[in-house]
Amino acid sequence: MLNPADETFARTLAAALPEGTISPAGPAYLEEPRRRGATPAATLARPRTVDDVAAIVRACAAARVGIVPWGGGTGLVLGQVMPEGPAPLILSLERMGQIRAVHAEENVIVAEAGATLAEVQAAAMAAGRLFPLSLASEGSARIGGNLATNAGGVNVLRYGNARDLCLGVEAVLPDGSVLRGLTRLRKDNTGYDLRNLLIGSEGTLAIITAAALKLFPRPAGVGTAFFTVADPVAALDLLARAQAMTFGGVTSFELIHRQGLLFLDEVLPQVRQPFAERPEWMVLLEIGLPAGLDPGDTLATLFAEAQEAGTVGDGVIAGSLAQRDAFWALREALPEGNRRIGAISSHDISLPLSEIAGFLNDAPARIAAIAELRINCFGHLGDGNLHFNVFPPQGGQADALRHLAPAVMECVHAMVVARGGSISAEHGIGRLKVAELERLGDPAKLAAMRAIKATLDPLGIMNPGAVLRR
Amino acid sequence: MLNPADETFARTLAAALPEGTISPAGPAYLEEPRRRGATPAATLARPRTVDDVAAIVRACAAARVGIVPWGGGTGLVLGQVMPEGPAPLILSLERMGQIRAVHAEENVIVAEAGATLAEVQAAAMAAGRLFPLSLASEGSARIGGNLATNAGGVNVLRYGNARDLCLGVEAVLPDGSVLRGLTRLRKDNTGYDLRNLLIGSEGTLAIITAAALKLFPRPAGVGTAFFTVADPVAALDLLARAQAMTFGGVTSFELIHRQGLLFLDEVLPQVRQPFAERPEWMVLLEIGLPAGLDPGDTLATLFAEAQEAGTVGDGVIAGSLAQRDAFWALREALPEGNRRIGAISSHDISLPLSEIAGFLNDAPARIAAIAELRINCFGHLGDGNLHFNVFPPQGGQADALRHLAPAVMECVHAMVVARGGSISAEHGIGRLKVAELERLGDPAKLAAMRAIKATLDPLGIMNPGAVLRR
Repeated sequence: MLNPADETFARTLAAALPEGTISPAGPAYLEEPRRRGATPAATLARPRTVDDVAAIVRACAAARVGIVPWGGGTGLVLGQVMPEGPAPLILSLERMGQIRAVHAEENVIVAEAGATLAEVQAAAMAAGRLFPLSLASEGSARIGGNLATNAGGVNVLRYGNARDLCLGVEAVLPDGSVLRGLTRLRKDNTGYDLRNLLIGSEGTLAIITAAALKLFPRPAGVGTAFFTVADPVAALDLLARAQAMTFGGVTSFELIHRQGLLFLDEVLPQVRQPFAERPEWMVLLEIGLPAGLDPGDTLATLFAEAQEAGTVGDGVIAGSLAQRDAFWALREALPEGNRRIGAISSHDISLPLSEIAGFLNDAPARIAAIAELRINCFGHLGDGNLHFNVFPPQGGQADALRHLAPAVMECVHAMVVARGGSISAEHGIGRLKVAELERLGDPAKLAAMRAIKATLDPLGIMNPGAVLRR
Repeated sequence: MLNPADETFARTLAAALPEGTISPAGPAYLEEPRRRGATPAATLARPRTVDDVAAIVRACAAARVGIVPWGGGTGLVLGQVMPEGPAPLILSLERMGQIRAVHAEENVIVAEAGATLAEVQAAAMAAGRLFPLSLASEGSARIGGNLATNAGGVNVLRYGNARDLCLGVEAVLPDGSVLRGLTRLRKDNTGYDLRNLLIGSEGTLAIITAAALKLFPRPAGVGTAFFTVADPVAALDLLARAQAMTFGGVTSFELIHRQGLLFLDEVLPQVRQPFAERPEWMVLLEIGLPAGLDPGDTLATLFAEAQEAGTVGDGVIAGSLAQRDAFWALREALPEGNRRIGAISSHDISLPLSEIAGFLNDAPARIAAIAELRINCFGHLGDGNLHFNVFPPQGGQADALRHLAPAVMECVHAMVVARGGSISAEHGIGRLKVAELERLGDPAKLAAMRAIKATLDPLGIMNPGAVLRR
């Protein structure tokens, strides 16, 4: 049983730490972006050093107080809020935001957990390198949270998830010991892979305090285009062509459905659209190329070949950086469009690539069997990762139809599981999907996860109730 | 305490399994390539299905019999032999060697653990794809062992280790339960990363029985060359140039020292050498390029630029497939040359790239302080992974100087640790390096590893004594 982070606890802890480290947690630390859950009350800790983090964890272990780690607060699955249970300590890494080192010649950057993703990208850029993790919330999401949740985004196709970009971590374990694993090595086979166990564990096994991350050379040329396609099968054919032509140089391949474009017309009409008639499907693709190849020419050749094969319909190739930014602005406006329309139920799913067409073929009738609803499906097609979001019919209100959410979720998850897919591709489990993971997860995997949680965090103080039931 | 896999145990187990599954283990299963250790006696199990593997593990758990998993038997750190303790069961996956499926359109192959690496490569090739893991023993090493040891090899620079190439695993856990994790997904954030925990755990946490692996498009053009360089700093400069020019298209970047070439002159004179005068250092580099670029031209441009900058001296670019094969034959002859000369002590180390020059600068004097010895250092420079092997002086015998091995190892490891390196880059810990891992490993990491081992394998039956002391 956990105890609340009450005033006595807060006072004792504050006295043991540098002035200003401990305070009551204001509303900004108690809520999450979609307002689907909140922490009723909490104490806030904002340490400046890994030793202070260790001292805080030891104090929480001694007092049996739950810890909710806090990065940028941008998570979408309630991993950063604790609606039930005794008031926790919210441990924000915001004051540990230093770039500790940039080793450009090694293509390595060492950043503290509280650095925002945009700050890490900027530090890489200043050194003439690329840190490729990129997602809509990069201005506020912090790298510690990106790692804790194994964040994905728009460049996974070429560069992998947060996990694939991390060489080493420094972390505080549930007993307050410090894992000093900030290795800058590309190869290290000395024992179990704790780094990857902590990455994606959503703060339930450790507090990541810093990481050594991979950098990359910047591509000599970047090309960006919108191509319309008849359906997702055509989009996958286009992807295969583009990959073959560029030797894996496709960095982003984003699928967009007409519904998303119509939502923009409705609630964000200022967003510039590339085609006068809204296509049923289109893709935003971006390629990086070595010196000696012109990205515009390569995309034009790709378009011509794909058009001849009947794979693409229309196309626009960005002719300037400003145009490229405008293309991406449309892609990044899609989630905001969704928010303004108001979803009944949102799904972050992934499928084997060859199952996507069947899934998208089946889905509309299955959803229609529940009620007359609108579907906006978009996402990182190259990774098999779709955001499949379900909305009220034109003129309807999500709140009035929220009772349909469980049926919609069950329907979507059943289709996903039947096709060997995942019910959480990049957002994680948090507290939102704990029951679904229990219901649908592999029993041997769940048993092993519980055993690992129990042995590393026997008191259950680390992000209680996230990923696994308390 | 473990019990021996004695005749009674073998008889009972045999009766519960298909005919021919259980037999006494012949010498081929008791020894390892460098003859530095052997299993005195053992029972052999060669199951054909994952259910049989599960039955065997359950029987061993019930009888408290140790299990030594056996792939191709090519490991170099005694992970596949158990010189001490009661006779174990050797569990060979050789009869589970099927390619279960090739999903070319998804770039995925599903292979059983007993398929050799060469068989997996061939199945990928037959589907017009590339499975890039490549190492000298690929004809006999099996993919299950490659995953259990997180194998590296010559293409890690571009494609990553075995870990990076694996999407999902099927594995039997120490209680005999089956982890059914053969996902073909690029993104899946549903809980802790057990896949990566099992990969690289060297058979101490589970028996991997099958894996879903990533395939890649084959490059449109491949170029291969030997360039001479003055020293490793120049080699790293050449690597950076090559990476920038090809947008990360360098697939191999192997450093070779004159000592290795002289060893070949001595014991394998039939190996064709590219330069009449043996250079102090040279690199074998290979690049993959998209359509539209000629690899020969690109390498010629790279050479001209690097020569003008003073980075390279001489160079030879392969003009045919046969010449490319000859280049690689030299690289692959280096370990055989070492074996014939006979090393006193071999080290599979990795370093941050910017520490390599300093290490190689310091090492000769430090080794010379122990005795007059010869050093052959070669390896995967792009990954910071060096094979640093120490030999007797000209005319000397390794056996007569074996007493120097501990001092040499301690000297090398001290230099490596001081520079933030790893004492096992790609070979693993096995039983050979358990004491060194204990001595030099991060205490928090070791404690967490022991806790995980104890909770997943409370009886200690899985590869007893490997990675962690029994």
